[in-house]
Amino acid sequence: MRKILLTGIAVLSAVFGWSQSKTLSGFSDSTAKKEFAAEEKFDSYLKASNVDRLIKEMSARPHHVGSPGGKAVSEYIFNKFKSWGYDVQVETFYVLFPTPKTRLLEMTGPTSYKATLEEPALKEDATSNQKTEQLPTYNCWSADGDVTGELVFVNYGLPEDYDQLQRMGIDVKGKIVIAKYGRSWRGIKPKVAQEHGAIGCIIYSDPKEDGYYQGDVYPKGAYKNQYGVQRGSVMDMPIYPGDPLTPGVGATKDAKRLDRKDATNLLKIPVLPISYHDAEPLLRALEGPVAPDDWRGALPFTYHIGPGKAMVHLKLQFNWDIKPVNDIVAKLAGSERPDEWIIRGNHHDGWVNGASDPLSGQAAMLEEARAISELVKTGWKPKRTLIFCAWDGEEPGLLGSTEWVEFHAAELQQKVVAYINSDGNGRGFLGVSGSHALEPFINEVARDVTDPETGISILDRRRSLDIENTKSSKGKKELLMKKTISIGALGSGSDFSPFLQHAGLASIDLGFGGEDPGGEYHSIYDSYDDYKRFKDPTFIYGVTLAKTAGRTALRLADAEALPFEFKSLYKTINGYAVELISFADQLRENTAVENQLIKEKNYSYAGDPTIKLLPPTIKDEVPYLNFSSLQNALTELEKTTNELSSALAKGKFSTAKQDEINQSLYKAEQKLLSNGLPRREWYKHAIYAPGFYTGYGVKTLPGIREAIEQRNWKEAQDQIEIVSAVLKTFTDYLNGITKNAQ
Amino acid sequence: MRKILLTGIAVLSAVFGWSQSKTLSGFSDSTAKKEFAAEEKFDSYLKASNVDRLIKEMSARPHHVGSPGGKAVSEYIFNKFKSWGYDVQVETFYVLFPTPKTRLLEMTGPTSYKATLEEPALKEDATSNQKTEQLPTYNCWSADGDVTGELVFVNYGLPEDYDQLQRMGIDVKGKIVIAKYGRSWRGIKPKVAQEHGAIGCIIYSDPKEDGYYQGDVYPKGAYKNQYGVQRGSVMDMPIYPGDPLTPGVGATKDAKRLDRKDATNLLKIPVLPISYHDAEPLLRALEGPVAPDDWRGALPFTYHIGPGKAMVHLKLQFNWDIKPVNDIVAKLAGSERPDEWIIRGNHHDGWVNGASDPLSGQAAMLEEARAISELVKTGWKPKRTLIFCAWDGEEPGLLGSTEWVEFHAAELQQKVVAYINSDGNGRGFLGVSGSHALEPFINEVARDVTDPETGISILDRRRSLDIENTKSSKGKKELLMKKTISIGALGSGSDFSPFLQHAGLASIDLGFGGEDPGGEYHSIYDSYDDYKRFKDPTFIYGVTLAKTAGRTALRLADAEALPFEFKSLYKTINGYAVELISFADQLRENTAVENQLIKEKNYSYAGDPTIKLLPPTIKDEVPYLNFSSLQNALTELEKTTNELSSALAKGKFSTAKQDEINQSLYKAEQKLLSNGLPRREWYKHAIYAPGFYTGYGVKTLPGIREAIEQRNWKEAQDQIEIVSAVLKTFTDYLNGITKNAQ
Repeated sequence: MRKILLTGIAVLSAVFGWSQSKTLSGFSDSTAKKEFAAEEKFDSYLKASNVDRLIKEMSARPHHVGSPGGKAVSEYIFNKFKSWGYDVQVETFYVLFPTPKTRLLEMTGPTSYKATLEEPALKEDATSNQKTEQLPTYNCWSADGDVTGELVFVNYGLPEDYDQLQRMGIDVKGKIVIAKYGRSWRGIKPKVAQEHGAIGCIIYSDPKEDGYYQGDVYPKGAYKNQYGVQRGSVMDMPIYPGDPLTPGVGATKDAKRLDRKDATNLLKIPVLPISYHDAEPLLRALEGPVAPDDWRGALPFTYHIGPGKAMVHLKLQFNWDIKPVNDIVAKLAGSERPDEWIIRGNHHDGWVNGASDPLSGQAAMLEEARAISELVKTGWKPKRTLIFCAWDGEEPGLLGSTEWVEFHAAELQQKVVAYINSDGNGRGFLGVSGSHALEPFINEVARDVTDPETGISILDRRRSLDIENTKSSKGKKELLMKKTISIGALGSGSDFSPFLQHAGLASIDLGFGGEDPGGEYHSIYDSYDDYKRFKDPTFIYGVTLAKTAGRTALRLADAEALPFEFKSLYKTINGYAVELISFADQLRENTAVENQLIKEKNYSYAGDPTIKLLPPTIKDEVPYLNFSSLQNALTELEKTTNELSSALAKGKFSTAKQDEINQSLYKAEQKLLSNGLPRREWYKHAIYAPGFYTGYGVKTLPGIREAIEQRNWKEAQDQIEIVSAVLKTFTDYLNGITKNAQ
Repeated sequence: MRKILLTGIAVLSAVFGWSQSKTLSGFSDSTAKKEFAAEEKFDSYLKASNVDRLIKEMSARPHHVGSPGGKAVSEYIFNKFKSWGYDVQVETFYVLFPTPKTRLLEMTGPTSYKATLEEPALKEDATSNQKTEQLPTYNCWSADGDVTGELVFVNYGLPEDYDQLQRMGIDVKGKIVIAKYGRSWRGIKPKVAQEHGAIGCIIYSDPKEDGYYQGDVYPKGAYKNQYGVQRGSVMDMPIYPGDPLTPGVGATKDAKRLDRKDATNLLKIPVLPISYHDAEPLLRALEGPVAPDDWRGALPFTYHIGPGKAMVHLKLQFNWDIKPVNDIVAKLAGSERPDEWIIRGNHHDGWVNGASDPLSGQAAMLEEARAISELVKTGWKPKRTLIFCAWDGEEPGLLGSTEWVEFHAAELQQKVVAYINSDGNGRGFLGVSGSHALEPFINEVARDVTDPETGISILDRRRSLDIENTKSSKGKKELLMKKTISIGALGSGSDFSPFLQHAGLASIDLGFGGEDPGGEYHSIYDSYDDYKRFKDPTFIYGVTLAKTAGRTALRLADAEALPFEFKSLYKTINGYAVELISFADQLRENTAVENQLIKEKNYSYAGDPTIKLLPPTIKDEVPYLNFSSLQNALTELEKTTNELSSALAKGKFSTAKQDEINQSLYKAEQKLLSNGLPRREWYKHAIYAPGFYTGYGVKTLPGIREAIEQRNWKEAQDQIEIVSAVLKTFTDYLNGITKNAQ
C-alpha cells in the first residue's frame, strides 16, 4: 500500500513540481524535510565540468593493474579524498596478474596470414598513440601455449553451439576454435571449448554485433572499426573471482597461496581476442558446412564452419607476475552510528585508458564524495559512516574488491548496511539491480531524481523504456498500471559480487546508459575523446549518477528506520520459484516430444539427406520434482514478511530498540547464504549467482535452476531442500525481528 | 472419421508395403483395384532421363513472350503432344508486352557511378552467353520515365516501412526509392512507392536474403552472385492479372482494348531491378539516419536511409508492343463423361532460359502426358476428359492462362471438375495448396506416392517438416497425433489464379522443393547447368511430381463419386473466421494501448532525444464488429456439410443420379464467388485472394480481412454481410445436393 501511495504522490509531484508532502521511507516528516533540504544542497554542489575534468585527467594514460599509470590514478584519487577531508587509506593486496610476453597468431594453410594484433593510433583520438604504455590486445588468464590445429568456427562458443556441432558430426577435439564475442560473458567461450577438447580458442568481434552493422565506425561514428579489439578477463569467475591463488582469503603479502596449476578458475588452453580485420581471412578460409542462419555475422562472405584446410598456429606466453592492487578507502565517520557502514564503490583500473570503463563511474563517485564534503562544511554530518572505495584490479577479475571483502569479511558482516556499486556510466536510462528488499527504497530514490533530457523522473523514464520493450499489449497495459519499476537481479561483472554473493551484504548496482552505444569497450579507443563525442557529451549523466547514488547513500546513512522491505523480496523470490516450476514442466514436455520425434525419425525425415545433420540424442525424461518444501517455505515467508511490515509500520521505537531492529534488518540478507553452490562454494547466496555457463548473466535460485538445466535431477531435489531450509532460517530470523518489534 | 481410418491404413501400408485393403475415395473396391493397377503402370512409364532431356532441350535458348525461342518451345510442346496422340491445339491471344528500349541508372552525386545492369556469361554455365537472345534485366510493366532525384532506402518498400519513415520525418515525395527484394511480391514495392509520391523505384537483391549470406554464390554454389538480377513483373496483379488492356475478356485479335493509360493495373513510375554489385555504391553513398536493425542487409557497411547528397538518375523506355501468346491445349477425350474436364497446366514461357522456372514443372507435366499416352496404348481410357495446358505469358502476369479462362469462362464453369497447376519444381518436400474441399482427396494422393529420398510417403515426409517447423511442443504434439497434412490457401503467382479466383473452379497447386535453394530465380543463371547441379540433380523429383499430379488427374478422371469433401472446407473457413475475430480483438487492444502510450508521451520518453523518431499517430479505436451473421452462416454450413457427407456416404446411386450429383459437387466452388472484392472486382472468390499489399501472398476471407487491416470499419461490416450471404447461398446449394442424394 505504501508503495502505491508514494507513487501516486510521485505523479502529482511530477505535475506540480517538488512537493513537501512527499514521504520518505525510514524518516519522520520532520527528518524527511531535513533530508530533502540536504539533498537539494548536495545536488547544487554537483558540477558536470568536474566530472568532465576528472574523466579527462584520470584517463590521460593507460592505467591497468601494476602500471605506472595505475599507480598515478590511485594516488590521484587518494589525494582527492584527502583534500576533501576524508579519512583515506590505501589498502594493498598482492595478486597474480599475467601480461603478454609472446602473441602470435597465423594461418599456415591453405594460404598464409599473420594476424596484426594491433589497434592503430588515430589522429582523432589523442591518447590512442600511447603505445609503450598500452597493454597489448589479449585475454587475461589465457594459458601459455604453442598450438597448431585445424580451425573450427563455433558461433558464440556456448554449450548449445557444441550440441549443434555434434549434430553436424563436427568434433573440436585437438582443434582450434574461433568464437564470436556476444551472448555470454567472454570467459565462458574458452571454458566450454576446453571442456570439448579444443587446444586453443580465438575470440573475435563480428561487425554484426560490434562493428559496421550497428552503425558508423570509429572515428567517424562510435562503433568498432576493423582493428578494434576487446581485451578482457577469461578467468573462470563463476567458480570464484579475485586472486586465483588465494580463494576465500585476502591476498596479503604473506597469505598462503595455491600453486598456479591448482587454481580451479584458470584455463589450460591459450585464448586470444582479435579484430574482425584479423578474423576475416581465417573465416574466409573455412570450408565444411555452411553455418546455420543464427551463426552468420556481417562479414561479406558465406560463413562456413570447417574444419578443413584452414590451419592455425597460436602461440601465447605470459609474464605470470605478482602485482600490487591498490584499493583506496575513504571514510566519513557517522555522527550517531559510526559502526553502521554504507559503502559506495567503483573501480579505478582500466584495460587501457578506460575513460568510460571505469572512469565515468569513478568520476561520478568522486564528485559525489566532493559534494558530500561540501555538505559537511555546512555542518551536516551523516548519522552512519560513509565509506568510498575506489577498487583496483576489477578488470582481471574483481581482484581489489574481492580481496578486500575476503580480508574484512567478519567486520563487514557486522557493520555493512549496504553496498552501492557503479561502473562505467553513460547517457540514457537508469539501470538498477540488487537486493530486492531495497526495491521500494530505490524506487523512492529514482522518483526524486530528474532525468536531464526529458525533465521527468529517472523512475518514469525507465518505466517508459520497460513499457516500450514489452512486446504484448497486455504486458504494456500491466506496466502502465504499475507506476514503479522492478529492479534486476545481480549476476557478476562488477565489484558488487563479493559483497552480495560471498558475504551476503545487501547490494545495489546503479548506472545510466542505453543512449551511449559504441565499440570502444576494453580497447585503446575507450578514451576521453571517444567519451566526450559519444557517451555523455555534456557529462550530465555523470551528475545524474552522482545524484542517484549520492541520495541512495545519504538516505541509508540518515534513515531512522532502515528502508528494507521484505515483502518485495518475497514477491520476487516467489516469482522466481513459479517460473522455475513452470520451466521444469516445460522441459518435461519438450523432452517427451523431442524424444518421440527422435524415435519416429522425424528429424531425419524433415532434413535434407545431402546435408549431414544427426538427430539430437535421446534425453532422460524429466521427473516430477517435489517442490512442496520450497512452496511451503514461501507461503511461510509471505505471512512473515506481511507481519514484519505491519509491525514495523505500527511501531514507534526507542532509539536503542530502533538500532537493534535496524541491525537485524541489514544483517537479514546474510541469512540467505547457504554453504555454497555445488562445485563453486565461494558463491553462497541462495537467491542470486552468476550463471556457470553465462558468466555475468544472473541465475536466480541458482542451485535449483542450474541442476535442472544440467538435467541433474538428484541434485535439483537436494537443492530444493537446501534452498527451502535457507528460506526457513531466513523466515525464522524475520519472525524474530517481528517479535522484537511488538 | 473416414480420414482417420484411411491414414491408419496408410501407416500400416508404410510398414508392410503396398496394401490391397487401402481404400480410395470415390471408387468402389473393385474399381479402386483397377485404378491402383493403372497407377502402378503409369508410374512404371515415368523416366527421370526423359525429364532431364525435356528440361535440357526446352531451356536451350531464352524463350520469353514473343521471342523466337518462345515460339520454338511452344512448337516443341505442340509436337510432343501430337506425337503422343493428343488432340492438340494452339490458342493464341494478343497481349501487351513491354520490353526495354533504354535502361540507364547512374548516381550523379556525391560521386559518380553508372550501374552495369549486366549479368556476365560464365564458363560454368553453357547458356549464359546467349546475349543477343536474352531479355535484359528489367521489371516488366515499369512505366517509361526519365527522373532524377535524391535517393531514399525504404527497406522492403512495404506500407509499414513508410510508417517508420514517417516517424523518422522522412518523406519520399519527389524522390527515388531503393527497396530490397523480399517479404512481399515485387510488384507491391513500386506500387507503395508510387502511393507515397516517389518518382522512381529501384529494387535490388540484398545478399542477406539472396546472396552470399545464404550460401556460396554461383557458380561455386547455388546462391546469387554479385551480378545476378531478378527480373520480373510489377503489374498490379492484385487489381487484375492478364493482359492489362482486356480485363475480364479474352485478348483475341479483335477484342475491345483499353487505352494503356486507362489500365488500372499499370504503374505510373519507372522501376528497375539491380544486382547487389550495382546497389552497393548507391547504398554506401546514403547519409541520414542509420537504418533500423530489421532494415539492414549483408553488405559490409552501415546502412543509412538518406536522403542527402546521393542523387540518382533513372531513365527507362520500353517498346510497348502487342505480342502473341501461344497456349498449347492438348485433349484426351473421356470415354464416359467427355464433358467433364480435368485440366492440368504449367506455363512454358521463361524470363530467360527458365530451366527451373517453369521448365522443371513443364517437363514433369509432359512426362505425365506421355506416360498417360502409354497407358492409353494398353487399352485404358480416362472416364472424364483430360486436358493438358502449356501456358504462355505467365511471367509478365498470367497472360496466357488468364486470357484463356476469360475467353472460355462460360464453358469452363460448366465442364471443369478441377484445375491442377504446377510451376517450377525441385528437390524436397511436397507443397500443396488449393480448394479445401479437395484436402482429404489430396492427402490420399500424397499417401500413395513415395518420397524418393527417404522411402516414406510424400505425405509423411511433408508432415515431418510441418512438425519440425512448428515451434511449440504443444503444437508438435498436435501434429504428431493428426497424421494428415493441411493444405495451404492459394494467393497468386501462378496460373491457378484465373481458374480459382475469377471463375470459381476448384484448383490444386502442386510442387516439390525446400532442398533446392538458390539465387537463379528470373536470372540468366536459371539454366540447365544450374538446375542439374543444384535443383534436382537426378531429376527424380520431376518424376515424383509427375506421379503426384498424374495420380491427382487420373483419380479425378476416373472416380465414380467425385471426392469433394465440404466438411474440410467448413473447418478451414471456420478456422479463418475464428482467427479473424481474434485479429480484430487484438487490433482493438493494441490500438487502445498504443493510443494511451502516445497520449502519455511514452514514445518520447522511451526514445533517445538526439535521434529523430516521432511517435506514431493516434489511430481511431477499433469498434466491436458484428460477426454474428458470419458465425450463424458457419454454424449452418457445419450442419449442412455433415449431412451432405452422411448422405453421400450412405447413397448407392444410379449412374444418372451419380452424374447429376458429381456435377453439382464440382460446380459448388462457384457458389463461393461474390460480385468481386472492393476496388478489384476481377477477384470474385469470397474465401481466397492475393493480398492487395502482399501480392502472391494469400488473404483468406479477403474482403473482411483487408477492410479490417485498412481500418475501414464500415466496409468490414459490409463485407461480413456479403461473405455471410455467399456462405448462405453456398449452404443452400449444398442442402440441394443432400436432398437430391436422399
